[in-house]
Amino acid sequence: MAFNELANIDKSITRRRRESLLGQRGAVVWFTGLSGAGKSTLANALEEWLNEKGKLTYLLDGDIMRTGLSQDLGFSHDDRMENIRRIAEVSKILVHSGVICISAFISPYRESRELARRVIGEDDFYVIYVSTPLAVCEGRDPKGLYMKARQGVIPEFTGVSSPYEEPVDPNLILDTSQHDIDACLKLATEMIRAAGVIG
Amino acid sequence: MAFNELANIDKSITRRRRESLLGQRGAVVWFTGLSGAGKSTLANALEEWLNEKGKLTYLLDGDIMRTGLSQDLGFSHDDRMENIRRIAEVSKILVHSGVICISAFISPYRESRELARRVIGEDDFYVIYVSTPLAVCEGRDPKGLYMKARQGVIPEFTGVSSPYEEPVDPNLILDTSQHDIDACLKLATEMIRAAGVIG
Repeated sequence: MAFNELANIDKSITRRRRESLLGQRGAVVWFTGLSGAGKSTLANALEEWLNEKGKLTYLLDGDIMRTGLSQDLGFSHDDRMENIRRIAEVSKILVHSGVICISAFISPYRESRELARRVIGEDDFYVIYVSTPLAVCEGRDPKGLYMKARQGVIPEFTGVSSPYEEPVDPNLILDTSQHDIDACLKLATEMIRAAGVIG
Repeated sequence: MAFNELANIDKSITRRRRESLLGQRGAVVWFTGLSGAGKSTLANALEEWLNEKGKLTYLLDGDIMRTGLSQDLGFSHDDRMENIRRIAEVSKILVHSGVICISAFISPYRESRELARRVIGEDDFYVIYVSTPLAVCEGRDPKGLYMKARQGVIPEFTGVSSPYEEPVDPNLILDTSQHDIDACLKLATEMIRAAGVIG
């Protein structure tokens, strides 16, 4: 076959073929909630559970983004929105690769979660609102961030000096002060199974 | 298990486990060369071949980047470098997901390819230089871009009014005016097999 015959060849490996190879549907499971609510814990538990079932996952979090793709961004409103946009664009590429992308970001603004939904696409975007009350999150304070926020050392800290806007219509709400990790995990896996992400 | 016991849990699904699940090693195969050299054709052929072998791939190209993650960037030197940096950061995430990421970009500057290598990591980055001579590329001119560049309609067009800096030490050189697609594909697959990307 000569090269110029192939100039207009389509991209032939489509998303569906990748998903068929993997036996799963590419999707984004987006954990949102206060610092200390249990997002990362749940995201890790979900990833572990999926991997034991032979599913391919990738966990995207603030550390990965802020030390990589978003290392040029600060924490102004515009930069936060741009950070979310980039997270969403990367997530979309992972979804098209067939990967189940698990995201754990405070993502306090409706505007930014709507941006993510728009970029990723309605059908591939599942929001889990980790609704653990502020008092419980602050009581846990695993990184001492709430204390610093109360002392004014950290400005604009979500829940203390900056708002958290609850999701209007999340796919699932999990309060980790009411349910233990196994119960939360069960609800999360039932949700993604019902959505057809896994069989 | 209570939530606060898990605050310091490690990310437990490592790259190696994903690669083991997939039966392949995550890597970037980066095609560089002039417009019309055959990069996309070879990239598509390689992806098709890998998929038939049950391997998971993702093809990253200019269309995907410029309509997505890099839609805010122009074509100044700084913006082109930033585009390459973002391509590299996304590629790295794909590699860590276990995906074989096939990239097809003119990427004319040594500086930008070195940036990509630095971000992705030496061991995961394989450069295929598609060295088809300018005269052949211009003769093919599948999108009429060379004609427009000669007419001055497109400024700074690689090979015409902007330099292409040949890779110093590519993993493979393929001249599509000397070899047909099957021969080029054979060399490419031998290279990635020798590198341990596939078994």
